[in-house]
Amino acid sequence: MNFCNQCAHPVSIQIPDGDTKERYVCDACGVIHYQNPKIVAGCIPEWEGQILLCRRGIEPRHGLWTIPAGFMENGETIEQAAARETLEEACAEVEINGLYGVFNIPHVNQVYMIFRASLKEKKFASGIESLETELFSENDIPWSEMAFPVVVQSLKRFFNDRVRQEFPAFIDTVAPIKR
Amino acid sequence: MNFCNQCAHPVSIQIPDGDTKERYVCDACGVIHYQNPKIVAGCIPEWEGQILLCRRGIEPRHGLWTIPAGFMENGETIEQAAARETLEEACAEVEINGLYGVFNIPHVNQVYMIFRASLKEKKFASGIESLETELFSENDIPWSEMAFPVVVQSLKRFFNDRVRQEFPAFIDTVAPIKR
Repeated sequence: MNFCNQCAHPVSIQIPDGDTKERYVCDACGVIHYQNPKIVAGCIPEWEGQILLCRRGIEPRHGLWTIPAGFMENGETIEQAAARETLEEACAEVEINGLYGVFNIPHVNQVYMIFRASLKEKKFASGIESLETELFSENDIPWSEMAFPVVVQSLKRFFNDRVRQEFPAFIDTVAPIKR
Repeated sequence: MNFCNQCAHPVSIQIPDGDTKERYVCDACGVIHYQNPKIVAGCIPEWEGQILLCRRGIEPRHGLWTIPAGFMENGETIEQAAARETLEEACAEVEINGLYGVFNIPHVNQVYMIFRASLKEKKFASGIESLETELFSENDIPWSEMAFPVVVQSLKRFFNDRVRQEFPAFIDTVAPIKR
């Protein structure tokens, strides 16, 4: 951020009066430009026991597999965001069943929220940001080609919980990936 | 938003290529300024069966009671945000116990996330944004003077769940308040 989006004057980084953190503050009109974490909403879409995954056609993690997920938009619910992303990335309509995984990813200022979901019909295709979209049985999940640790963790937990048919929501915090 | 925070040129409202929603787009450098929902993090702080509430010293709902809660910041977890807000608004240190209530509030572009929590010691005071901070037994909660429906709903559910000592996380969507 270089300029104030209200008055176009340059901003500087300051700790405002009564605050404890550095913010972008307009040097002319004084507006404080707060920045807050974003929610990534996604789901685990199930069809007759299989899971629908997408192979990413965009960075980061181009070519690797993940569940449908993306940034929640203003004016929608988290469930609507998860269903919309599934339609955009996998051309599939889902019923959202329940909140399942919540992940803090503080180093990228994101909160990842994953729902369980059911495909309404066996109909899917690759959306514009996907290279492939495919149904996988538990034994066929391409574990070594998964894009994100939060998805691996959620799917493993999901298959475990599915044995008992009990899916209590969980929350976890993700550290930066060492590469 | 009037100006691009990257280059200071005026922005206009457009639907970018490949998008379906109106965005603020810079007429000079082309940057799309996405806007996303914010997370409000709070907790139900318990001390020997009583709940710590704050009477709001700021708008909206000045003078009404609520649990400690506020906007999650970049670089922190939701749990850290809930604990920080409790320290700021009620000068109280809490242990965060588990995710409890998640509320979509799409008409104000917020997601409210409420945790169960325990006061570490019987020590609290009014923070700068609170008029009063007080412990209430279930029977003494000032139900008619509560600031937010999500807090009323969460507390009622909490007292109900407390009987069985089981607190499954729940998610709900809030419609605009009719006044």
